[in-house]
Amino acid sequence: MRRTSLAEMDCSVARTLDVVGEWWTLLIIRDAFLGARHFEEFQRRTGIARNILAERLERLVENGVFERRPYQERPLRHEYRLTEKGRELFGVLTALRQWGDRWAAEGDPPMVLEHRDCGYVAVGVLTCSECGEPLTPYNVRAKGRLITRPAPRPGSDPMSRPA
Amino acid sequence: MRRTSLAEMDCSVARTLDVVGEWWTLLIIRDAFLGARHFEEFQRRTGIARNILAERLERLVENGVFERRPYQERPLRHEYRLTEKGRELFGVLTALRQWGDRWAAEGDPPMVLEHRDCGYVAVGVLTCSECGEPLTPYNVRAKGRLITRPAPRPGSDPMSRPA
Repeated sequence: MRRTSLAEMDCSVARTLDVVGEWWTLLIIRDAFLGARHFEEFQRRTGIARNILAERLERLVENGVFERRPYQERPLRHEYRLTEKGRELFGVLTALRQWGDRWAAEGDPPMVLEHRDCGYVAVGVLTCSECGEPLTPYNVRAKGRLITRPAPRPGSDPMSRPA
Repeated sequence: MRRTSLAEMDCSVARTLDVVGEWWTLLIIRDAFLGARHFEEFQRRTGIARNILAERLERLVENGVFERRPYQERPLRHEYRLTEKGRELFGVLTALRQWGDRWAAEGDPPMVLEHRDCGYVAVGVLTCSECGEPLTPYNVRAKGRLITRPAPRPGSDPMSRPA
């Protein structure tokens, strides 16, 4: 049996992981959010080997997560800027960071976000686009193609437990 | 120079990736949210090789993301249940899925969540724990240890742009 690649799976989690699911890739994107633009900055911040970094940046440009722009002519130098597609990974990084703060950090969180609109240190809360209340595994029901096989046993599935 | 491991980095994104940052690991957790409990179910849903699946489940139990419980005595069989630590990955999976729906899926999203409290199909919106308004890369400022090196150039950083 040929193994299905992530990009071929009919699942948006799998397809996202195909683009950004490599550890270093997400750390590169993290540093772009924190202001890094140049190869040397990404290299210094992540400590990643130069050949691997070059390959990852190349793939992120091909996938439209970064845009490469010249910023110096002699010698020619490029900078890497997040596209809209890249900037929308903010939610993924925030969710990863917050989980790590709670379950994997030692002591205080290494980094927090201040919400400039209100001035407070903010924790991101996942809320419903329709009613504004928090979404949890217990108050949602998954609907779609991925859950048709195998049929869940009654009560076995936190996402389809009867109300 | 010895490469710093993800678990040693003073960054909650890196430490989270150390626990769940392997593609298959996140697909296993996805299927647990969708009701899978048994080795055979995880195997059938993900299509992952049995030896790799066994190793990933083992690591997730060691890391406290899954709890392994016996459910049959002869022959002895175990099921895998998400712990609280595991269930809190809901936000990470939701963020990955939603990004993929928008940027990596073909056609309609393969899966949606219905918010049982209001009855509508919900998109998760990341909102501020303090004021309830949406958080974006443009209305937050990162504070902490990770952003002290190198100093961002003025205007270069979407997360610390002046208001």
